[in-house]
Amino acid sequence: MTTQQETPATAVTAEVYAEVQQFYAEHMHLLDNGTVDAWADTFTADAHFDVPTLPEPLRGREALAGSLRRTTAQLAAEGVRRRHWHGMVAVFPQADGTLRVRCYALVFSTPLGGDPALHRVCVCEDVLVREDGRLKVHRRKVTRDDLP
Amino acid sequence: MTTQQETPATAVTAEVYAEVQQFYAEHMHLLDNGTVDAWADTFTADAHFDVPTLPEPLRGREALAGSLRRTTAQLAAEGVRRRHWHGMVAVFPQADGTLRVRCYALVFSTPLGGDPALHRVCVCEDVLVREDGRLKVHRRKVTRDDLP
Amino acid sequence: MTTQQETPATAVTAEVYAEVQQFYAEHMHLLDNGTVDAWADTFTADAHFDVPTLPEPLRGREALAGSLRRTTAQLAAEGVRRRHWHGMVAVFPQADGTLRVRCYALVFSTPLGGDPALHRVCVCEDVLVREDGRLKVHRRKVTRDDLP
Repeated sequence: MTTQQETPATAVTAEVYAEVQQFYAEHMHLLDNGTVDAWADTFTADAHFDVPTLPEPLRGREALAGSLRRTTAQLAAEGVRRRHWHGMVAVFPQADGTLRVRCYALVFSTPLGGDPALHRVCVCEDVLVREDGRLKVHRRKVTRDDLP
Repeated sequence: MTTQQETPATAVTAEVYAEVQQFYAEHMHLLDNGTVDAWADTFTADAHFDVPTLPEPLRGREALAGSLRRTTAQLAAEGVRRRHWHGMVAVFPQADGTLRVRCYALVFSTPLGGDPALHRVCVCEDVLVREDGRLKVHRRKVTRDDLP
Repeated sequence: MTTQQETPATAVTAEVYAEVQQFYAEHMHLLDNGTVDAWADTFTADAHFDVPTLPEPLRGREALAGSLRRTTAQLAAEGVRRRHWHGMVAVFPQADGTLRVRCYALVFSTPLGGDPALHRVCVCEDVLVREDGRLKVHRRKVTRDDLP
């Protein structure tokens, strides 16, 4: 949090802010829908993805796709739907053209025929880059509020 | 999800994205406040509203107003407040000038004097149109995560 | 709700709407991070802050800082993390240059090693003003859904 808030290169424009929101919306729809390849394509080929639910960070689009493929199969077998929400999205454009983002992330979990539940409360820190005009996640670090 | 993501007419602008967010905010404030007629006026006269809590889709502004009037009275009698949240809003402008929207929708429910609860996790797919310069819901389809 | 919806000075622009969202995101990150002075600086010096968890409204930046300092220490002692989310943000620019905002506010609470919980569902009404080009909260009134 310290770095990007103390040295923002420039204020975020409305255009970029809306683009980031739309990007996250589509990104999460693909994730929760289990649309594996299209979701993996919202990351750079060499993306670095660090989340506390995994024993070590994932590196690269293929590892990401494999991870989502396994999770999707497991949730389907359990009859559970997950929804990921980003909110309180703060975007800090950097001098090198990348976007640093700090936001909150909720995960909701609903079993078929059962009650919806709040599954996780997290903080997500992303570095977004532009490739061929489209935003992609280059680095992601997620921390969970229930873990030290 | 397939159609609008595969054939977006154009990318959404910051102006339209902000307008959709402001529209949903006011729309939900009116809904949860039980401001029946003003809420019904955020739909087209011939709106089609398909939600799994109703036995069949509602058609038209008068049916919508009647439905909200009954729900508002029932919640007041129970001493319960509902809050509807849209999030992860993806907007896909179409060639005909309409906007297709896919977003997540949460419903929170709080009894007076009691604890707040997550009531529903849903997906909402809207077709928004412009009438006299203002956005209105022309079609809405809501699916609940707990139902097949 | 009545006043600002019946007499909006002008429609909100995409620039201002994005600025308000970015402002709230940074504001809540500072709050939940316990970054007391920087958070207090997101209010005007004479801010008026009315929330039902406090016996009477707080007046002024120093009172706000003191309140957050106490809350931060208490949550740290309890091993609990809080996250404040604004959503369904409706912005109504006024003729005097201020912004009236009506939005929903969620508070999530997660004990270290435990399950996350929805703590509060609230409505937040703000008057935002601009000082030296930056938005600040001049007045805030929060109501809780579980209280009459």
